[in-house]
Amino acid sequence: MLEVCLLGTGGTVPLPQRWLTSCYVRCRGESVLIDCGEGTQIALHEQRFSCKQIGTILLTHFHADHTAGLPGMLLTMAKSERTEPVTIIGPQGLKEFLDGVFAIARYVPFEIRYAELTEDEVAFQAGDLKITAFAVRHSVRTYAYKIELDRNRRFDAEKARSNNVPVRLWSRLQKGETAEQDGIVYTPDQVLGEERKGLKMVYVTDTRPTDAILEHSRNADLLIAEGMYGDPECIEKAKKNRHMLMQESAAIAAEAGAKRLWFTHYSPMEKDPGMYQEEIAKIFPGCLISQDGQRIDLAFESEEDNV
Amino acid sequence: MLEVCLLGTGGTVPLPQRWLTSCYVRCRGESVLIDCGEGTQIALHEQRFSCKQIGTILLTHFHADHTAGLPGMLLTMAKSERTEPVTIIGPQGLKEFLDGVFAIARYVPFEIRYAELTEDEVAFQAGDLKITAFAVRHSVRTYAYKIELDRNRRFDAEKARSNNVPVRLWSRLQKGETAEQDGIVYTPDQVLGEERKGLKMVYVTDTRPTDAILEHSRNADLLIAEGMYGDPECIEKAKKNRHMLMQESAAIAAEAGAKRLWFTHYSPMEKDPGMYQEEIAKIFPGCLISQDGQRIDLAFESEEDNV
Repeated sequence: MLEVCLLGTGGTVPLPQRWLTSCYVRCRGESVLIDCGEGTQIALHEQRFSCKQIGTILLTHFHADHTAGLPGMLLTMAKSERTEPVTIIGPQGLKEFLDGVFAIARYVPFEIRYAELTEDEVAFQAGDLKITAFAVRHSVRTYAYKIELDRNRRFDAEKARSNNVPVRLWSRLQKGETAEQDGIVYTPDQVLGEERKGLKMVYVTDTRPTDAILEHSRNADLLIAEGMYGDPECIEKAKKNRHMLMQESAAIAAEAGAKRLWFTHYSPMEKDPGMYQEEIAKIFPGCLISQDGQRIDLAFESEEDNV
Repeated sequence: MLEVCLLGTGGTVPLPQRWLTSCYVRCRGESVLIDCGEGTQIALHEQRFSCKQIGTILLTHFHADHTAGLPGMLLTMAKSERTEPVTIIGPQGLKEFLDGVFAIARYVPFEIRYAELTEDEVAFQAGDLKITAFAVRHSVRTYAYKIELDRNRRFDAEKARSNNVPVRLWSRLQKGETAEQDGIVYTPDQVLGEERKGLKMVYVTDTRPTDAILEHSRNADLLIAEGMYGDPECIEKAKKNRHMLMQESAAIAAEAGAKRLWFTHYSPMEKDPGMYQEEIAKIFPGCLISQDGQRIDLAFESEEDNV
């Protein structure tokens, strides 16, 4: 199961009733935070998550509405007596940015590991989660993040028997190892059933539409995408500042066959983004004008099949 | 008149229902912000002040609960199309701290002037406000700030006449200039009445009690002082981490003859600081367990005398 909580939905500046865009993802003891604007630690607290658990922080880009909460977040993690390392991933320039963070947050007692993204697409692992960062198109170097949870193939005893796999090797093969007995090599394929669909969520904001967003969002269980403006008349402003209209994100979700689309990163000008719900649903019925604290537990397709 | 608003009252970490300690002071078009923790810009917005107006930012020290909101504040000021310079005052190390701020807030289009406090006591002017920074006793170099507004002496026509001051010089003398006529030098003293009490507020947090706090708080109209804990059993913790109990701040206010005492910088452990109101009022009846957004307009002693 993949727990997802959109901690905030605001873009540009934090507002009294709207935290800056940030997303918390939890799965099997692994916690990932995407973006950390001013106030994100308070939003996390409001949602009753503990910042102590966060092992990985993904930054889309270095505009402060996505990053300025990091010094406070790290210090509150420190106060929670975290001792394990924290990994921070972000675009090139991360080292310089972190030097700035540590000029404000001076006493972080745990190790910070960091990785600067230099390629257009980079995949890495956080616990069981497979994370893919892919470059998008904003006014500064910006990445979107895809988070996937693979699903184990089911053990198929009948197949194992028909392949004459010795019973004592079943357990190792089921775990994905190869095994040998009497000079014969056995592979996991000989005991495992069909591939099964895993889970996929994508978080993409501060960009114009791109082919990469479409490709990575194909059949996503959840696409969280920028809805900077809901008024189509804002298209020139969106193009100029490299943001997406709700209409554009909805068109991507529809074409990609995503299951759900949540909007985020509303312009402070959009006082009531919910007013666009009906209109945008005409483009993609699975859309939701999310609010701060929007949550979902993404589960594998049929609950009783879960492993 | 000196408008004072305590934007937040929290210490250490920002909480969902309590902003970090910060104070906004406005007088005759001059706006001063003391401390700027994570979320201070949101608190300011909630109180319907505009960050665009802030000309001077005073930092008590470089613990992040007093400073981490600065990158976001400066950027929101930038978005408000501020073009005038902003002056930032803080302890030694301010330059290095600001380098960190600018690694997060990369595009500040107005000039930042800064001054590092190196002496134990430094006085300077912001518009009509006389500000005195004085060192206090915390785990790192920390300053308290006293803000004073002088009151003009009243023009005394009778005195001017009795001193044979030519009428055509009255206006210049009243403004504080000296003037000469027929070889005789006239001074403001010859046309002005008695000295009149001005206004004084003091903001002091993150310190143990000191003599300087007492001296600077004498007859203050408003003392805003640390009330980290209300439970006297926390005294050892307060001593260790260099903070003040409510009881200690109240004793200072009483001895200094302050008119009012507001508490701030409550420990996150203090879920309901208001519960101490009655007990602390026994030490100093003019105390108030302030809440976020506490406001007062300090006026000269008798309204009809105002100039």
